[in-house]
Amino acid sequence: MSRSINLAVIPGDGIGQEVVAQGLKVLSAVLPQDVKLETKEYDFGAKRYHATGETLTDADLDALKQHDAILLGAIGDPSVPSGVLERGFLLKLRFAFDHHVNLRPSKLLPGVGTPLAGQPEIDFVVVREGTEGPYTGNGGTIRKGTPHAVATEVSLNTAFGIERVVRDAYARAQARPRKKLALVHKNNVLVHAGHLWTDIFNKVGEEFPDVTTEYMHVDAATIYLVTQPERFDVIVTDNLFGDIITDLAAAISGGIGVAASGNINPSGEFPSMFEPVHGSAPDIAGQGKADPSATVLSVALLLRHLGYEAEAARIEDAVSADLAERDGTPRTTEQIGDALAARVAG
Amino acid sequence: MSRSINLAVIPGDGIGQEVVAQGLKVLSAVLPQDVKLETKEYDFGAKRYHATGETLTDADLDALKQHDAILLGAIGDPSVPSGVLERGFLLKLRFAFDHHVNLRPSKLLPGVGTPLAGQPEIDFVVVREGTEGPYTGNGGTIRKGTPHAVATEVSLNTAFGIERVVRDAYARAQARPRKKLALVHKNNVLVHAGHLWTDIFNKVGEEFPDVTTEYMHVDAATIYLVTQPERFDVIVTDNLFGDIITDLAAAISGGIGVAASGNINPSGEFPSMFEPVHGSAPDIAGQGKADPSATVLSVALLLRHLGYEAEAARIEDAVSADLAERDGTPRTTEQIGDALAARVAG
Ligand SMILES: CC(C)[C@H](C(=O)O)[C@@H](O)C(=O)O
Ligand SMILES: CC(C)[C@H](C(=O)O)[C@@H](O)C(=O)O
Repeated sequence: MSRSINLAVIPGDGIGQEVVAQGLKVLSAVLPQDVKLETKEYDFGAKRYHATGETLTDADLDALKQHDAILLGAIGDPSVPSGVLERGFLLKLRFAFDHHVNLRPSKLLPGVGTPLAGQPEIDFVVVREGTEGPYTGNGGTIRKGTPHAVATEVSLNTAFGIERVVRDAYARAQARPRKKLALVHKNNVLVHAGHLWTDIFNKVGEEFPDVTTEYMHVDAATIYLVTQPERFDVIVTDNLFGDIITDLAAAISGGIGVAASGNINPSGEFPSMFEPVHGSAPDIAGQGKADPSATVLSVALLLRHLGYEAEAARIEDAVSADLAERDGTPRTTEQIGDALAARVAG
Repeated sequence: MSRSINLAVIPGDGIGQEVVAQGLKVLSAVLPQDVKLETKEYDFGAKRYHATGETLTDADLDALKQHDAILLGAIGDPSVPSGVLERGFLLKLRFAFDHHVNLRPSKLLPGVGTPLAGQPEIDFVVVREGTEGPYTGNGGTIRKGTPHAVATEVSLNTAFGIERVVRDAYARAQARPRKKLALVHKNNVLVHAGHLWTDIFNKVGEEFPDVTTEYMHVDAATIYLVTQPERFDVIVTDNLFGDIITDLAAAISGGIGVAASGNINPSGEFPSMFEPVHGSAPDIAGQGKADPSATVLSVALLLRHLGYEAEAARIEDAVSADLAERDGTPRTTEQIGDALAARVAG
């Protein structure tokens, strides 16, 4: 285990600034004294885009590559046309650093609100493919602005890309008590990509005979997520379906205020990036209203990725305890951060 | 209004047979004496596929074209590889008959169960595009079965196809008391298709100044569907996103046992097709366990489409009343059908 962490910090836009500050506070508080934490802040996002027209340059990528990991707040602002920062920064980074395992755990903690009746038991993790599918940007438009316009989006799926993420998901399922893995796709309609996913899922499964598997269409998955969420243990799915079902998963398990994610490059060739699932929420930015828990939980994923398992668990326990004791009294972003920092230090 | 209905009936697979029988029973019961109902049954589905290898031939399409409308139960069986009947029959028919308005209403009726806490007010309709997007079957696979396999799926989107469905959705929104329309897409990632949708949505909106609009990413839409479903009035969206969110919509508003749909060709050039949102449910087929309400409500949509508004409303009222009086006592498919037929006749 490395006894130093060299972290790239990207607060980004909107509430990103506020929640990242609390994430760093909790990180500092949880780390043992002998671990040297170095951080370098980067100014990516709307402001830099407006000032320079840049979203993420080759030089930026070279700089980011030097770090052990990246902590990101949120990217996106209404002043920038939809897609510019998402494609030009967030997706560009995920693709450049080959973040093919997009890890999104969902756990409904005791005392935490859910829109579902009857407080079901929710504890699953979605392994979303992060570098392929409909997210590659492959597509185009002809005759834009005319009645004869045609636009395409091409979903690219490779055996290489599918197999590595499916294998990762099997390994995660095998390491969990219930050892269950569901493949979510739409192989009755998207037969090319869907059958490639399904074939590889079945083939790799032969290496994991103790993992129980099921296949589910993405439309059916949204039904089960609200009617039988306790059914799920590990889910593996494509980039777009993963995007959709993890927002739903967040909504039913405490909301996006507590949904963490990791964009992981398992080989370690590139730094992995950790970020809350939520966006920049410009409507509440700068008001101290954002819940930093999702960012703090993303810091826990970051620590686990770097080998600091005990510290990761301490953060998760602190967030659990904090959530369990919430009584509806409003607290600021900073107050929640302080409370969590005190818990992990204590 | 035509005083005769010449209906094509496709019971299909699994529970399709059982629920369609009840749909026809209620249809006969609700129609005024002077309306002549002619039905012709077609044997599409797994059985015919196994016997002949055919799913839907040109001759079949010619025959179906002669009808005023089509009532479908469900298509699909585990004995047939995933995609064969879906692509070869269901989607082929939707595309051949240019069913570009896929109409899926969601209404949580009093007394009906929902997985959501607090029994929210749910009354919206999804207008799902039915002939474009990722559903066209455009794509392919190279090097199948090898580690170098690549599979693609191409989403095709035309100004022509988007504009007509968007216009239909605006008109539906304008005709409803709340006059609200939401576009659901993912224009921050699928920038080609997404911006074409968004631009046309905004442009057509100029003709409907009294309709309040909003844009929502599909991932965010799944959150709002479970946290604020009362927010929605009319939603317009692409074929795949529509598939996904209407299953979720069904789940929160009484389940797929009561979710109806119409595959509509508004010009009337081809017959429209009405079907429950649920599938063939082979696990409960032949046991009289299926709820025929979704099929019966699809018959109501069929009648409304053919101009029988009063009869459509009578069916909807009958289903509402039946649902409100359910006390958990199990009834067979036929018993529910009988009860609904009695109500609409009464
Ligand atoms: C902002 C957007 C590009 C992103 C995605 O679609 O992946 C977000 O929704 C997410 O889930 O991280
Ligand atoms: C069976 C399948 C092809 C179909 C679809 O994806 O459209 C179904 O899920 C539906 O929603 O009608």
